[in-house]
Amino acid sequence: MTRIAVESELRYEVHSPTGLLLAMSAAETAHQHVTDDHLSVTPEVAREQVRFDPSGHDLVRVHVEQGLVTISYRAIVDVRPHVPDDVPRSEVSFIDLPGDVLGFLNPSRYCQSDLLERFAQQTFGGLDPGFDRVTGICNWIWDHLSYVPGSTDASSSAVDVLVGAAGVCRDYAHLGISFCRALGIPARYVSGYAVDLEPPDFHGFFEAFLHGEWYLFDATRMAPIDGLVRIAAGRDAADVAFATIVGAAELVGKEISAVDLDRAGPAPTTSTPALGTA
Amino acid sequence: MTRIAVESELRYEVHSPTGLLLAMSAAETAHQHVTDDHLSVTPEVAREQVRFDPSGHDLVRVHVEQGLVTISYRAIVDVRPHVPDDVPRSEVSFIDLPGDVLGFLNPSRYCQSDLLERFAQQTFGGLDPGFDRVTGICNWIWDHLSYVPGSTDASSSAVDVLVGAAGVCRDYAHLGISFCRALGIPARYVSGYAVDLEPPDFHGFFEAFLHGEWYLFDATRMAPIDGLVRIAAGRDAADVAFATIVGAAELVGKEISAVDLDRAGPAPTTSTPALGTA
Amino acid sequence: MTRIAVESELRYEVHSPTGLLLAMSAAETAHQHVTDDHLSVTPEVAREQVRFDPSGHDLVRVHVEQGLVTISYRAIVDVRPHVPDDVPRSEVSFIDLPGDVLGFLNPSRYCQSDLLERFAQQTFGGLDPGFDRVTGICNWIWDHLSYVPGSTDASSSAVDVLVGAAGVCRDYAHLGISFCRALGIPARYVSGYAVDLEPPDFHGFFEAFLHGEWYLFDATRMAPIDGLVRIAAGRDAADVAFATIVGAAELVGKEISAVDLDRAGPAPTTSTPALGTA
Amino acid sequence: MTRIAVESELRYEVHSPTGLLLAMSAAETAHQHVTDDHLSVTPEVAREQVRFDPSGHDLVRVHVEQGLVTISYRAIVDVRPHVPDDVPRSEVSFIDLPGDVLGFLNPSRYCQSDLLERFAQQTFGGLDPGFDRVTGICNWIWDHLSYVPGSTDASSSAVDVLVGAAGVCRDYAHLGISFCRALGIPARYVSGYAVDLEPPDFHGFFEAFLHGEWYLFDATRMAPIDGLVRIAAGRDAADVAFATIVGAAELVGKEISAVDLDRAGPAPTTSTPALGTA
Repeated sequence: MTRIAVESELRYEVHSPTGLLLAMSAAETAHQHVTDDHLSVTPEVAREQVRFDPSGHDLVRVHVEQGLVTISYRAIVDVRPHVPDDVPRSEVSFIDLPGDVLGFLNPSRYCQSDLLERFAQQTFGGLDPGFDRVTGICNWIWDHLSYVPGSTDASSSAVDVLVGAAGVCRDYAHLGISFCRALGIPARYVSGYAVDLEPPDFHGFFEAFLHGEWYLFDATRMAPIDGLVRIAAGRDAADVAFATIVGAAELVGKEISAVDLDRAGPAPTTSTPALGTA
Repeated sequence: MTRIAVESELRYEVHSPTGLLLAMSAAETAHQHVTDDHLSVTPEVAREQVRFDPSGHDLVRVHVEQGLVTISYRAIVDVRPHVPDDVPRSEVSFIDLPGDVLGFLNPSRYCQSDLLERFAQQTFGGLDPGFDRVTGICNWIWDHLSYVPGSTDASSSAVDVLVGAAGVCRDYAHLGISFCRALGIPARYVSGYAVDLEPPDFHGFFEAFLHGEWYLFDATRMAPIDGLVRIAAGRDAADVAFATIVGAAELVGKEISAVDLDRAGPAPTTSTPALGTA
Repeated sequence: MTRIAVESELRYEVHSPTGLLLAMSAAETAHQHVTDDHLSVTPEVAREQVRFDPSGHDLVRVHVEQGLVTISYRAIVDVRPHVPDDVPRSEVSFIDLPGDVLGFLNPSRYCQSDLLERFAQQTFGGLDPGFDRVTGICNWIWDHLSYVPGSTDASSSAVDVLVGAAGVCRDYAHLGISFCRALGIPARYVSGYAVDLEPPDFHGFFEAFLHGEWYLFDATRMAPIDGLVRIAAGRDAADVAFATIVGAAELVGKEISAVDLDRAGPAPTTSTPALGTA
Repeated sequence: MTRIAVESELRYEVHSPTGLLLAMSAAETAHQHVTDDHLSVTPEVAREQVRFDPSGHDLVRVHVEQGLVTISYRAIVDVRPHVPDDVPRSEVSFIDLPGDVLGFLNPSRYCQSDLLERFAQQTFGGLDPGFDRVTGICNWIWDHLSYVPGSTDASSSAVDVLVGAAGVCRDYAHLGISFCRALGIPARYVSGYAVDLEPPDFHGFFEAFLHGEWYLFDATRMAPIDGLVRIAAGRDAADVAFATIVGAAELVGKEISAVDLDRAGPAPTTSTPALGTA
């Protein structure tokens, strides 16, 4: 078990009546237990809990008339990853996929897996199936892409990132998801926190469905797999934006931290263990 | 009420073990009642009903080893559209959208609404909100696009179709959905049958969420709104493919029909009435 | 005749040995006479005049080892546009186009005219041929696009700009060129200076080949046609970059001005007269 | 010297007055001598020789009112490639490139080298410069792409081909050109004939400018380098189409052959020798 303290704060200058939809809260799952969590909006405004279907994560929606608004979140999260005795050596056949997983085979806005079928088959078709194949995808992405903040923007897709050979965490995840889906492996985007991220920020990674479970992968190698705290999962980054703004608001401040409370030194960054954390 | 007889048959030559996922069955909804429906697979093979989450429609999955396989469906469908006294003059504010509708604001693989925000605002921003605005979008699409079978393919997106100025029903729907989402109106793709389609085929259209309900639109003007039979709804065509093939199978025959059992003459093709049929 | 004083200065901080290729000098043509022109590079470095084939404009190439380098240009340019008695009412048939014009029918990096054939035919096919049709294209672009600095970047093409509905002078020109070529009208990109530009900068516009001559058009309406000073023409902006940098140099200063020496007040901005200035 | 007999015939059914621009004739160059060439148009119609500037190749333009038209070409071509004592180990510095070569560094419609700079640097930046680097590019393309007729169409660009991982000769050449330009190596598209092509067709390959000369490369490995007969060179396939049709004509027949008159057996297909054939 890893005990992680997460904190985040977003400050907006709101110029005219604006709706904010926030996905900053750590999720309670079979592999992740949240305590002491607190989300505050200052000044206090009416807020509403909304369940985003289909993904099933909870959003907080607030309406702000004008002025400075600060949204703060903090929690202690116990991450208890399920470590299988052995990594999954197989992929689930299309004929056996559960209905709630099928949609994660489909291409999405930022993951045009349909365009990458031959590329993926050509590059990863010869690897051992299962965990090794997805690890191979992550290694290829790590080798091929340069991590360059500012090299992509909110409209950049997996295809753009593959061609441009650079991106940030979100782009690494989109490319990994696209290659998985192109090979018939369901994959989804996960937003969250990551311990010791440098510079500190929210994080994006992905999950692949292998052997009946979702397994976490992070092609950026920026944090250990057991240092990842899930906020929400969706088809791609579009589904799990940390903040969606409809109106006129400007981000004027952002502070994020995630600290492993038990660990003193720097975290290892290889992704060797296979962890199911759905 | 319109009583519509639908029939469809797909024939595949299967070359090696293949999974088929079929979405050919008319949906049972508050506005659509299905009787006498029958789906057969010849030769008889094991088949499984799968519920596609999130959209919640039922799929039939079969596994075929080899040889010719024929999938036939027929049903009588009573379409009882809800006709409001007046068309909705307003759109639902972002702050009031239900959680299960929020995802239909997001861009998707074939509906890159994020890229079209300024285009949509520039072209449709001045129209009256609600039903009139979406009708204006449909009229613009009808004026701008030429219906040209073969001008697009399975990878064509709304942006491709806008630029290329041609497409088929699926493309018309994707462009309509994209413009709606770009304007903050949730929209989704609907697959189905349509009476008197020429040439006969499956059909694709879309729904926009206005005033708390989903309203049907068909920018192709190929069938009357009350001649549309729903199979399934999803983010775009990727979610509701009539048949998904994983393996090696070749479509060798396709026959589809939808007949209005009460109407003798040809159907009117304007989209004047506002119908909620979710 | 318009007498225009142009001045430009670019300052670079060069970090390591760098080649600079400059296209800042006003062209001497049948319709444009240049006097008192002077290009200086400070500190003085070896420089070479290079003729860019095919377009036939002269470039200055310098090699800088390190440090601050300032390139300054000034000239007095007499623009003597040829004003035909009547605007050309016809377009040159493909069968009659000169060989040195044929290449300007082809799609280029930023002008994918091949993708826009149906869009152009659909939107401009019904207009009167010749000058009126190209004017119609410019008017449509003016109506459809918003002039938004920063909305596009160096990789944005005509298709991107059409979809995004915003751009700067270069984008307006690329879209105009693309529509012309899509309709069988040869068109090329012109870089230059423009009087009274706000904010002052280099400018980009385009020419269409009508009735045996190249006619100038500027869809931005930012300067009068007889206030445009040509530097060079090419297939699109790629051919006529003001400065091409190979190495490591950072632009640290830019000043540009173009003043109509005979005119006191602000210039009219409509593009009514037809001017051949090839 | 290789003596190659080339023959081609195109047959069109012309439905309404149509202009045809043909680039089927072998070029006379320092490394290629053409004898016994004959181009005929049946029925006989007025035809005109047009020089395509900038590339400088000759085109034949004919105007056909209606009916079946047959264009036939045949020639004997002596290919005398210049074989340097050693392959060029260096690339020409930007600062030393001739003015008529500079344009072949620019991105073009089908060769978006500007988008591929990081990809190319990442993949080929570590190879030895000059001939070896371009050979490395060709080998990578050969490994990465599948040669699949029908996988691309006339609008497919190098980026599409890279992503889709399949294409035909034109696509292989476009990708090779794009990678070269992205690395600062001028490159251009060459259309031509190739001995023993299977199935017989026109061919497309490319040239890279190294050490002051243009060197031929063919990433498809479909013909030996000294079995390539040049028709024309240009920025990409758009500049050197075998036939450009403006009007309404349908290709109803095509026959092409290129035979090495001195060689009986099948040709070797490796691209080892370095040949300058500009």
